[in-house]
Amino acid sequence: GRSCGRLRTLLLSGLLRTLWTPEFFGQLCTKHDEVKLAEEASKKYGSPAPTIFSKVIDKSIPADIIYEDEKCLAFRDVNPQAPVHFLVITRIPIPRISAVKADDLLGHLLVVAKNVAKQESLTEGYRVVINDGKHGAQSVYHLHIHVLGGRQMTWPPG
Amino acid sequence: GRSCGRLRTLLLSGLLRTLWTPEFFGQLCTKHDEVKLAEEASKKYGSPAPTIFSKVIDKSIPADIIYEDEKCLAFRDVNPQAPVHFLVITRIPIPRISAVKADDLLGHLLVVAKNVAKQESLTEGYRVVINDGKHGAQSVYHLHIHVLGGRQMTWPPG
Repeated sequence: GRSCGRLRTLLLSGLLRTLWTPEFFGQLCTKHDEVKLAEEASKKYGSPAPTIFSKVIDKSIPADIIYEDEKCLAFRDVNPQAPVHFLVITRIPIPRISAVKADDLLGHLLVVAKNVAKQESLTEGYRVVINDGKHGAQSVYHLHIHVLGGRQMTWPPG
Repeated sequence: GRSCGRLRTLLLSGLLRTLWTPEFFGQLCTKHDEVKLAEEASKKYGSPAPTIFSKVIDKSIPADIIYEDEKCLAFRDVNPQAPVHFLVITRIPIPRISAVKADDLLGHLLVVAKNVAKQESLTEGYRVVINDGKHGAQSVYHLHIHVLGGRQMTWPPG
């Protein structure tokens, strides 16, 4: 019973690993797009160090992605601070909000944040948080928006 | 000496009160603009109840305004939760982020937030917070962005 269960788990995880590839899940963003986006980002923002989020975007590490489009994607925070806690990140690796050069992308990120909050049924409300730099407690230097809900948020916000 | 000082204070505060009128400080946003903006808002968002922020916008109550343009203004929070704590609010009375219909204004609000953060010398970083509804602890139902800095912000964000 036990070794059979373990075998089943092994087979399942092998299957998942086979499916969980950029080729299978990366339909919405081809390699070509990524190169174009990276070039665009490097022109605007220099070449910031790749972060863990680059691997989420190119699907080389798994993430619970709940929304994606040509400019951004949303996925659940691996260390959630509320019953619902997801991130919205840009595809192009902008390091932080203080480094943003244009506002089109920021508006889109917030619209996606509120739309995914609705999709996640956060009808009682939620909190949107963007951390910049050390004092903001920014942990990954790739622009991302936190959305937290499903519980009463308190004041001050950290 | 003392009564003379008191007289000087009275005269100064009278002078300030005379200057502190919508006519004097409202150059950037005429009554006509306000009417146009209110009409635009009412078409898009219905007619939300006026809040304390309507009075900040029409300058009928004083606020420490540190930035303004045709779409928004920024002023210091009256109950600051950090050495630097300011709000960026829309001129049109959108009640909350979950009620926003277009993204142009949201992008602009975040750009203003980051620009004013720079103007306030928050070089060590900062936190941007938008509260929606009850669970978000939204206190005023007029869309506003909090920016907090000048101290280490903690995690979780409330």
